[in-house]
Amino acid sequence: MKNNSPLILVTNDDGYFAPGLKALVNMVKPYGKVLVVAPEKGVSGMSHAITISQPLRLNLISKDDNVTIYKVNGTPADCVKLAINQLVDKTPDIIVSGINHGSNSSISVIYSGTMGGAIEGCINNIPSLGISLDNHSMNADFSVAIKHSETIFKSVLENGLPEHTCLNINFPVCSENEFKGIKVCRQARGVWKEEYDKRTDPHGGTYYWLTGQFRNNENGSTDTDEWALKNNFASIVPVKSDFTNYEALNKIENLNFTNDTKE
Amino acid sequence: MKNNSPLILVTNDDGYFAPGLKALVNMVKPYGKVLVVAPEKGVSGMSHAITISQPLRLNLISKDDNVTIYKVNGTPADCVKLAINQLVDKTPDIIVSGINHGSNSSISVIYSGTMGGAIEGCINNIPSLGISLDNHSMNADFSVAIKHSETIFKSVLENGLPEHTCLNINFPVCSENEFKGIKVCRQARGVWKEEYDKRTDPHGGTYYWLTGQFRNNENGSTDTDEWALKNNFASIVPVKSDFTNYEALNKIENLNFTNDTKE
Repeated sequence: MKNNSPLILVTNDDGYFAPGLKALVNMVKPYGKVLVVAPEKGVSGMSHAITISQPLRLNLISKDDNVTIYKVNGTPADCVKLAINQLVDKTPDIIVSGINHGSNSSISVIYSGTMGGAIEGCINNIPSLGISLDNHSMNADFSVAIKHSETIFKSVLENGLPEHTCLNINFPVCSENEFKGIKVCRQARGVWKEEYDKRTDPHGGTYYWLTGQFRNNENGSTDTDEWALKNNFASIVPVKSDFTNYEALNKIENLNFTNDTKE
Repeated sequence: MKNNSPLILVTNDDGYFAPGLKALVNMVKPYGKVLVVAPEKGVSGMSHAITISQPLRLNLISKDDNVTIYKVNGTPADCVKLAINQLVDKTPDIIVSGINHGSNSSISVIYSGTMGGAIEGCINNIPSLGISLDNHSMNADFSVAIKHSETIFKSVLENGLPEHTCLNINFPVCSENEFKGIKVCRQARGVWKEEYDKRTDPHGGTYYWLTGQFRNNENGSTDTDEWALKNNFASIVPVKSDFTNYEALNKIENLNFTNDTKE
C-alpha cells in the first residue's frame, strides 16, 4: 500500500443513500479513511456532465472516525471535482464509483454517470474504478460483486493503474458458485436502439419517454465485456480519457480539406 | 455527394436560438434538406447526458421547404436520438453539432454537449462533426469558422468518415488573413484545475460556483489541438466512441486479480 492510511474517495450516480454505494463503503473502509461525496438524488445517464449554470451545495450527512459522507446537488463528476478541490488536504489515493444498480458495459460507458465519476478521477491522475452490477433493483444482492471488487480494489490500491486510464468493471448477476472469474476485455461494439414511448398528456400534448433496447454488434467475439457478462464473468475494460482515434489520423489527413492549409 | 438531396441533421448545446447554430444552418442549407433538433435552452457542460427520469417534448419552431427547426427539453444526445427515432424517414447523411460558443479542445471534449451530439451520431454510424469557436460571446464573429467549416463539411459529406469516429473541430479567434489553415491533431493532454468560488447565501448557507483554469500538460508538442488553436490553425481531432485503452489491456491482465479466475 502507498501509505499507512490511504484516502479513499467514493461516489456513485444512484445517490448517497443507494445500497450499492453502502456495500462499497463497507468493503473499502478497512483499507483507509473513506470520504463519500455522492449526488443527493439519483442522476443515472448524466455521463460526464458538470454543473455550470447553478451553484453547488455540499451537505454533510454523517461523520465518524473512518467514514465521512457528503451529498451534493450535482453529478458524479461534480462530486469528484468538489471533493478534490474543497474537501481534502491530500489527493485521494484511489476513487471508487458505484456499485451502480445496472450494468455499464459496451457503449453504456458513454452515458454512465458512474463512469463519469471514475473518468474524472483518471483525468486527475488518480487510480479510479467504476463498478456496476447487471441488476437495476434497489434490492439487488451485491455480495458476489463486493467479494471480487475487493480483489481488484486491493490490487489497484497497491499497484496503481496506467496513466489517464481507469477501469470499467461490470458484474453479472449470479451466485458465487456460478461466477466464473474476472476477465479483462475490450468495450463491445453495440448501440442502444431507442424506441421512444410516445404518449399524450391530459392536455393533448405529446411527450416521449426514452426506453430502448441494447443491440450487440459483435459476431460472437469472446474478448468483449458483453460476452464476459453473458458468461458469468466480471468484465474489466481499461478506459482512457484521450478520445483521439490515432488509427484514423492519417485517413483524416488525406481528406482534401487539408488543401485548405496555407504554409 | 451521396444522393441528390442529403438529409443534414443539426444540433448544438447552446440552444436552438444561438447565433452559432444559425450561422451553421445558413452554411449547410445549400447542400440538402436541413433538420434542426436542438435544446430549448443552453445546456453547456452536459457531456453525453441523456434524459431518463423525465419525458421529452419536441416542439416545432419553424418549417420551410428546406429547413425545419425543433426544440427539445433535453440534451444534444437526446436531440440526436429523438431526431433519428421519431422525425426522419431515412437516416441522416451527416450530423453537424455547433457552432459552439467556446472551444472544446483537449479534455473539454469529455464535458462538451456539442461533442455529445456528434459522438451520438458516430455511435449510430452517421458521419458527424462537432464544431466550436474559441469565443464564448453571443456576438462572436463566425465568418472564418463558417468558411472553413464548409470545406470540411463538403469533404465529409462526399467521403464519409472512418467507422465509429467523428470529428472534434475547433476554430481560433482570428481574421481570415491571420488564419493559418486546418490541422489534423491529437487531443492535448490537459486538465481543468477547478477553483470553486465559495460563497455564502443571504441565509448563511455555503454554495460553490464552478470556475476553473485549463492547464495544458504538454511540453510544447506541435501535434495537439491546443497548439493548433494557439497558433491560429483550426484543429481537427478524430474522436472515437470506443473508449478501450487497448495498449493497457496486457498491463491490466498482469495485475494479480486475474488469479481470481476459475477455468
